[in-house]
Amino acid sequence: MDQVKVFAPATVANVACGFDVMGFALEDIGDEIIVTKTDTPGLKITEITGCEGLPTEPEKNVATVAVQALLDSLQDKPSFGFQFKLSKNVTGGSGLGSSASSSAAAVFAVNKLLDEPFSRKELISFAMEGEKAASGHPHADNVAPSLLGGFTLVRGYTPLDVIELDYPEELFATIVHPQIEVKTSDSKKILKRQITLKDAVTQWGNVGGLVAGLAKGDYDLIGRSMKDVIAEPVRSILIPLFKEAKQSATDEGALGCSISGSGPSIFALSKGKSTADKVASAFRIIYESNEIDANVYISGINPIGAEVIK
Amino acid sequence: MDQVKVFAPATVANVACGFDVMGFALEDIGDEIIVTKTDTPGLKITEITGCEGLPTEPEKNVATVAVQALLDSLQDKPSFGFQFKLSKNVTGGSGLGSSASSSAAAVFAVNKLLDEPFSRKELISFAMEGEKAASGHPHADNVAPSLLGGFTLVRGYTPLDVIELDYPEELFATIVHPQIEVKTSDSKKILKRQITLKDAVTQWGNVGGLVAGLAKGDYDLIGRSMKDVIAEPVRSILIPLFKEAKQSATDEGALGCSISGSGPSIFALSKGKSTADKVASAFRIIYESNEIDANVYISGINPIGAEVIK
Repeated sequence: MDQVKVFAPATVANVACGFDVMGFALEDIGDEIIVTKTDTPGLKITEITGCEGLPTEPEKNVATVAVQALLDSLQDKPSFGFQFKLSKNVTGGSGLGSSASSSAAAVFAVNKLLDEPFSRKELISFAMEGEKAASGHPHADNVAPSLLGGFTLVRGYTPLDVIELDYPEELFATIVHPQIEVKTSDSKKILKRQITLKDAVTQWGNVGGLVAGLAKGDYDLIGRSMKDVIAEPVRSILIPLFKEAKQSATDEGALGCSISGSGPSIFALSKGKSTADKVASAFRIIYESNEIDANVYISGINPIGAEVIK
Repeated sequence: MDQVKVFAPATVANVACGFDVMGFALEDIGDEIIVTKTDTPGLKITEITGCEGLPTEPEKNVATVAVQALLDSLQDKPSFGFQFKLSKNVTGGSGLGSSASSSAAAVFAVNKLLDEPFSRKELISFAMEGEKAASGHPHADNVAPSLLGGFTLVRGYTPLDVIELDYPEELFATIVHPQIEVKTSDSKKILKRQITLKDAVTQWGNVGGLVAGLAKGDYDLIGRSMKDVIAEPVRSILIPLFKEAKQSATDEGALGCSISGSGPSIFALSKGKSTADKVASAFRIIYESNEIDANVYISGINPIGAEVIK
């Protein structure tokens, strides 16, 4: 195989209570990459479409930074190189794991062309180097679900321990992405570095509840657990119409609604697609009537993660 | 039915990472209560054995405080009263939910004599009033597993939301109770009221991992998740030979080891009874060789909780 085309999905990190540890993968929305073997070693980005201003220097682009980390870990270096065409469908600064989709797609594609020396789980740590290039912090809460699909839990980092969570079939996500940019760095800055033990206990009660609810297929418990007392109260200030959107999601019957990653995208989880559709309509009306451009997506949970496409 | 004898198990709260939210029930170790209907309304404690210095005034004893809360919630008050004989097998200040066992046994017994107006779950909030009398704080992390059995998660308190967690069959607990008293109030005082967001994230990653590990029956994940960066580092200072005991449990193959409740009891979880037995021997040797009296217990996870006995 000399060329491969890969899709890696956009992702929703945090999932309300699971700040920095939980995430899930979306269907259809994500980045595509075409990777071609070249005769001589080295990485080259020949094209980036769908997003302006991204660096094409291999040492600066998250996708090639991630691939370089993969190559660095190989004892036997390949005698060939790789050329990348990246098609971005996830906008940077959306809160939908844009950099993670690119990093995940790139390492997944290169791993394929190398005849898969690494498992999907092993690819996570390489994709994290892309995240480090993007945000200064090698976090896994987006790259893990983008590579593995489904719901993931980053139990810990020393060593990296990513858990694939069981979850029920009928979950659907509705996403609204107001067209304003919130930089992850700004959104990190607004968080308090110290929190009360009381709030922390509330949060981990909900993390336990969400994991149990997903495992049991208890939709009501999933909804009751989708509460974030740490990040949402401060980060939501940066997102126009957050309160109104959240209220409308609840009114339409969503299980829960919170910020996707560091925002400004907002996600809701619903049981069944028809409820997810209603939430989407409500989101559209809110942003349209306030004359704020917003993209709305409806998606099942992507069970596969990164995959080779035609 | 005019009389009933009830056993309510001792419990291990926190389970390492699940500070204030998780707990599980032990077999065989627990309090027994005989409750007899009396002709006229009112509560009377006629006997307490197994523990000195506990109050027999109904308004002061946790068991009768809990029962009074149950009676107060009834619209139709019974025309009769109740008399209590309490047999304590769980020492107060052990960290094994002594007050919770008494409260749980008492409300379970009275509910039986009233022809069960309340479900087991509904009894939790009454038993919590006993905990409030004992510690000033109406917590549920011991009374929930004592009433329900198994592993429980207190997802939240507003409203009270207790989740019965799935768990695998081959888990065994080994407990060592060094014969020193650590008051819950002292053990609460030593905790910091503010924690870093970083530590909080570590903790809820582990809570998620523990709940997932229990649900999946993934013993290794259960063990990896039994890490407490919040309470154990400070509370363990109050417990003689904690480090040595924990190290020995790990050496003998336990999945994990931490403080039971607020201590001084230490618990380990193992896969299979033979490992739990080895841990018990190791615990005994450590405390005997240092001439500290200590009781050691080995127990499966009690799947039933409070129950009527002969």
